[in-house]
Amino acid sequence: MLERIRIVLIGTSHPGNIGGTARAMKNMGLTDLALVSPRSEARSADAISRASGADDLLASANVVDTLEEAVANCTLVVGASARSRTLPWPMLSPRALGERLPTELAAPEARVALVFGREDSGLTNAELQRCHAHVHIPANPEFSSLNLVTAVQVLAYECRLAWLAMEQTAASDTQEQHQPFGIDWDNPPASHADLERLFEHLERVLIAIDFHDPATPRQLMARLRRLYLRARPDQMEVNILRGMLTAVEKHVGGTPATDSGGVHS
Amino acid sequence: MLERIRIVLIGTSHPGNIGGTARAMKNMGLTDLALVSPRSEARSADAISRASGADDLLASANVVDTLEEAVANCTLVVGASARSRTLPWPMLSPRALGERLPTELAAPEARVALVFGREDSGLTNAELQRCHAHVHIPANPEFSSLNLVTAVQVLAYECRLAWLAMEQTAASDTQEQHQPFGIDWDNPPASHADLERLFEHLERVLIAIDFHDPATPRQLMARLRRLYLRARPDQMEVNILRGMLTAVEKHVGGTPATDSGGVHS
Repeated sequence: MLERIRIVLIGTSHPGNIGGTARAMKNMGLTDLALVSPRSEARSADAISRASGADDLLASANVVDTLEEAVANCTLVVGASARSRTLPWPMLSPRALGERLPTELAAPEARVALVFGREDSGLTNAELQRCHAHVHIPANPEFSSLNLVTAVQVLAYECRLAWLAMEQTAASDTQEQHQPFGIDWDNPPASHADLERLFEHLERVLIAIDFHDPATPRQLMARLRRLYLRARPDQMEVNILRGMLTAVEKHVGGTPATDSGGVHS
Repeated sequence: MLERIRIVLIGTSHPGNIGGTARAMKNMGLTDLALVSPRSEARSADAISRASGADDLLASANVVDTLEEAVANCTLVVGASARSRTLPWPMLSPRALGERLPTELAAPEARVALVFGREDSGLTNAELQRCHAHVHIPANPEFSSLNLVTAVQVLAYECRLAWLAMEQTAASDTQEQHQPFGIDWDNPPASHADLERLFEHLERVLIAIDFHDPATPRQLMARLRRLYLRARPDQMEVNILRGMLTAVEKHVGGTPATDSGGVHS
């Protein structure tokens, strides 16, 4: 389970924090590190020194340009966030996140990403809106900004506890307890990339039917993202929605996008 | 309760770790820091920089020569330790420690000390044997040595969760636990009738765009119902979806149903 949990750091500016994250991950048995456009050298002497023996994670870290690339194959993306946002988003405590992991990772192809923002400014609203849910580490309201590495440590610790608990109770767990919706589901969950293609397609169509004006977005796409991400769509559901959008495009004379695929079957 | 939990660092050699400990403590609402014969300057520039705003804890830290002095008035002393010791000692998990704190600190004069050893060699057997119990952070057996600051962070986090749980034992009916998404939501949930009108409207539109043939339904509407019901849409989300459907109808020349309402606002 732990090998399918990815820690994603966006725009990290201090190499020591990259090294410290690698150490905290390896301490808790996590190995999958992705760095999105780091503002410092991932394999610098500082990073390797703070990793103090976890430099194998630095060497294998996947360095990419965008959050999209970092989480494309993930079935659950959770962003570390302060509590209050203009648009409320499903919010988990670190413990509740840990308790969900065995279920979320029951399918062998499932991947969970835990996304951490910049030391100075955290995650942008656009980045937070690409997450299924947000996780908030309960902190002193007067002094709530944790160091990046200690925040990673707390979530990695909850991941490990959840894994240990699962190992201990594995024998008594029925398969149904490991199903996201309490039963065997009929289709695998959609990937992050599937959902992003859906949202792009949806936005194109909403513009084509004069329902959405990107000049005055009024959080429309954010609200639709929140709705669909909450539902955790499966692959066939995404195909159906894509097919519906393609059918609308045909009728409004828009040119269906080349990738609009999604014939529902 | 939190103000009566003391973090004791013995022989710390890196000032950054003293500063980072102060920050981790203040993040979690802890204020009582004791330094036993530190091998570095507690108020150095490095320490203050890593404290990033928690330097009040550095200023008020009690610097003493011996563990005895640091924990003299404590009613429970717990030493952070690796698991295996030649002489077995009562061992707590961080979570079990947190669960014990409300009881341990019930008496107003009670004090709990959490003792952390040197970066390189931890606590000596003599120091460990001055503790009522030991606490071990579950870690990867192949890479089990946590950074001092992240170890303090994990235990301070468990202290805070235990305090929050105690504060909110009336929390079994705080609003949050009644929120479907873990936080106050910005719109009330849609009613069953709202949703049925949405599904009727959706089906009319899917027929109008030749995506759905009631003669060969292929469970299309059932799958769409399952998707949207799973998301527990709120009233504004239903309005947005209704508005989208109305916009599609205008473009395909269908006659918008009289009740197609749902102008999204």
